Amino acid sequence: MGSLQADLLEANQTCHPKPLDPEEFRRQGHLVIDFLADYYHNVDKYPVRSQVEPGYLSKLIPDTAPNNPEPIETILQDVQNDIVPGITHWMSPNYYAYFPSSGSTAGFLGEMLSTGFNIVGFNWMSSPAATELETIVMDWLGKMIDLPPSFLYSGGGGGVLQGTTCEAILCTLTAARDKILNEIGRDQITRLVVYGSDQTHCALRKAAQIVGIQPRNFRAIETYQSNAFGLSPASFREALVADIAAGLVPLYLCATIGTTSSTAVDPIAGLCDVAKDFGVWVHVDAAYAGGACVCPEFRHFIDGVEKANSFSFNAHKWFFNNLDCCCLWVREPAALVNALSTNPEYLKNKATESKQVIDYKDWQIALSRRFRAMKLWLVLRSYGVASLRNFIRSHVKMAKLFEDMVQTDKRFEIFLARTFAMVCFRLLLPTSKSKGKEPERVVAIENELNQKLLEAVNSSGKIYMTHAIVGGVYIIRFAIGASLTEEKHVKFAWKVVQDHAEALLATLD
Amino acid sequence: MGSLQADLLEANQTCHPKPLDPEEFRRQGHLVIDFLADYYHNVDKYPVRSQVEPGYLSKLIPDTAPNNPEPIETILQDVQNDIVPGITHWMSPNYYAYFPSSGSTAGFLGEMLSTGFNIVGFNWMSSPAATELETIVMDWLGKMIDLPPSFLYSGGGGGVLQGTTCEAILCTLTAARDKILNEIGRDQITRLVVYGSDQTHCALRKAAQIVGIQPRNFRAIETYQSNAFGLSPASFREALVADIAAGLVPLYLCATIGTTSSTAVDPIAGLCDVAKDFGVWVHVDAAYAGGACVCPEFRHFIDGVEKANSFSFNAHKWFFNNLDCCCLWVREPAALVNALSTNPEYLKNKATESKQVIDYKDWQIALSRRFRAMKLWLVLRSYGVASLRNFIRSHVKMAKLFEDMVQTDKRFEIFLARTFAMVCFRLLLPTSKSKGKEPERVVAIENELNQKLLEAVNSSGKIYMTHAIVGGVYIIRFAIGASLTEEKHVKFAWKVVQDHAEALLATLD
Repeated sequence: MGSLQADLLEANQTCHPKPLDPEEFRRQGHLVIDFLADYYHNVDKYPVRSQVEPGYLSKLIPDTAPNNPEPIETILQDVQNDIVPGITHWMSPNYYAYFPSSGSTAGFLGEMLSTGFNIVGFNWMSSPAATELETIVMDWLGKMIDLPPSFLYSGGGGGVLQGTTCEAILCTLTAARDKILNEIGRDQITRLVVYGSDQTHCALRKAAQIVGIQPRNFRAIETYQSNAFGLSPASFREALVADIAAGLVPLYLCATIGTTSSTAVDPIAGLCDVAKDFGVWVHVDAAYAGGACVCPEFRHFIDGVEKANSFSFNAHKWFFNNLDCCCLWVREPAALVNALSTNPEYLKNKATESKQVIDYKDWQIALSRRFRAMKLWLVLRSYGVASLRNFIRSHVKMAKLFEDMVQTDKRFEIFLARTFAMVCFRLLLPTSKSKGKEPERVVAIENELNQKLLEAVNSSGKIYMTHAIVGGVYIIRFAIGASLTEEKHVKFAWKVVQDHAEALLATLD
Repeated sequence: MGSLQADLLEANQTCHPKPLDPEEFRRQGHLVIDFLADYYHNVDKYPVRSQVEPGYLSKLIPDTAPNNPEPIETILQDVQNDIVPGITHWMSPNYYAYFPSSGSTAGFLGEMLSTGFNIVGFNWMSSPAATELETIVMDWLGKMIDLPPSFLYSGGGGGVLQGTTCEAILCTLTAARDKILNEIGRDQITRLVVYGSDQTHCALRKAAQIVGIQPRNFRAIETYQSNAFGLSPASFREALVADIAAGLVPLYLCATIGTTSSTAVDPIAGLCDVAKDFGVWVHVDAAYAGGACVCPEFRHFIDGVEKANSFSFNAHKWFFNNLDCCCLWVREPAALVNALSTNPEYLKNKATESKQVIDYKDWQIALSRRFRAMKLWLVLRSYGVASLRNFIRSHVKMAKLFEDMVQTDKRFEIFLARTFAMVCFRLLLPTSKSKGKEPERVVAIENELNQKLLEAVNSSGKIYMTHAIVGGVYIIRFAIGASLTEEKHVKFAWKVVQDHAEALLATLD
């Protein structure tokens, strides 16, 4: 990159922009707002699942950075031409894959303000508003979903914004681990056992691995269709008893409200009662479904949460906050702080020493933290409780519509009763083809059939859904929650599925 | 919150906004851009360090969320009236505390695009552009700071964007730990030892704690002023030898380029040579200073990095990306993937199975990930190598100016020779007051004096600096790097320091 002399010469010759000129910021900011508003206008026209091939972008982009500044107009043109085709459009109204990434105008604006202020809110002093707003909105939200007072600041607990559920689990697992190791001795780490079901999100296994739980001490307890794939308290107790008998130390259970594969619900109250007998920390992962509890008709799914140690949900999933925004509440903040606090000299300050303030760095993995509360605050205020309920209910209503349409078509089956706004369904092998075959053989053929159907639908680019395998059965997941989705899109989606199924079934003849 | 019937009634009566209406997005987006542009115009007028008292915000904000939507105009008015006074203005040109949070127009716009697309880029399939752009820009940036080819994709290594250095350290430490435990047995975790110096960032101790290193097996090796607080390879070797003799297993060293307290530099090459003899993973934490290597005259500080296992720097610190953007490169991506990968059925897809793509979920703690590469790409393109060098050099030049001014005033001393764009200085006790006193007593008085000086300056709201204690000496850190800072601000800052010092010294008489 040239000698120092040449660089200095070059520096003197080039006309350098300023990194932050308020008027240039304004001009370019308006351009990008218009770019994104136009994107939302057109997003239903793009193939939902990107159709590019691996390595597409390196053919379009040079392999070194430019030496001189490029204008935003050129860059936005490249975003449109080179990046947009490589995007899988989570914001498309035709997006039904994984779980939704339900961005909103308010969520976007909140992130803009947070990014614009660009504070690094590790402790209270580094920006009091960031800490205090977080404390306030976490109590707001806790009350909205009717969390027990013991999880609120006003009741001795407290909430904190993490990036993702993975972090929420990692932090609470570390807290639980250190709490018990402080009692039984640090060397006992190899005896600790972590529990989930075979439906629990992979985040639990990864967190257990990171905190040093022996892989042989991780339990994915089997669930059954007869229980709608919820974790049975009896199975949990059995596992605990066996581990104790083997000289191990039960540590932590992650119970789920709305599993990724099929939105199954673990019975929290029963699991907590068992956990209590063995001194096990219970974390409730309601990543997808927690926000639905803002509607009283869904609140019963978290009944018993008052017996759990911690609870989290992703407000960026089905609660209209742009990624990332995971809401974690704990009943015993001291357990987090004891495990995760640091107190280097260069961060010491009077406010911390006064013990009148919260330093959220001690509630999370990282030191630095963005001002995420701004985003959540904007979403809660811009929509209010009434409209947030309305949004959730409109998704549930559309899911019910889809479910009804599937049920009316005898070529398909609903695999599990719908709980929230996701429908699990599959195409059946026509009876003319299945008769005389063993049931296992039929399921195997159907699994392959549904895999083909899903790939055909997704390759069309018209809609995007994803799959799961539950109890050995391949199911198609239709998760409603994209912010732009309306009834007409859902009807269109069902037509797309039917058309592809028809074509696929025709090939069987 | 009312019965279900009442809620449904209410839902029917309220006029609900849409969560994402493109024209409303456009209108509100423009309002927020103007709000932020105006904020940047006025940010030098606010007290830099917020002057609010703990608990100020709960007096201004209700304790429950509103039931009905509120207009953005009202919310922005509240941001101005209630939030801005509680912000410590990291974007102020008069901000010299901690390390800078150097946001820029391009960094902001990149974050806007990322937030607007709102994709969840856990694997290639979930949005190919996000993965491929990250791969490309990490090689761009690696070349810009002249990283050895072994850290680039083009050379068998690779870079990945993390949120913070804490995460980069946690991921590489987990990788190093599992690599060695896979050889010596999982039960050996209690024998592993982690090394840093007494100047290493607290992120290392926290990461070691999270991954289950025994607290007694954490080494903060002493450094000395005679070495400018760099970690001596001889001291490191001594610690290793002692640990081996005690039956322990050395695991991981974090070496630092630009420590938080005083921007000290650990001699990487020498440390890596020692580490190699003992099979220790070396991570180089250049959180603050790594970006400066884009200027050839600073590149020598990371000489020897080709012998390290991993290297990271925070592009959100002194490289014009808004928070958060930590760039991590590793020579052996497989070590990360082996320790952090998950492969649940619901994420399985053809691209992953083809092994032609990268799934960055296996390079980090969390599953979900934002499209951070967009931000870095916009910064690199909007400014280009030439202007980025120019920005860095202008900060260094201003730091030199400040250093010169301090040196000219005999009441002060520069505590350590400046390395980058931070000046470590302190006020001295006048000789008339120090004579006849023991040197230790003089330092103790001076420490108190500087603490008072710093608090007086910061309380004025005119500028904001922070402190460190190095080798028992309290120093004031003047870190230049805020994107709006110009020479006139630095001259003003020095005047503010002098004025307060004069007032303080007068009280000694």
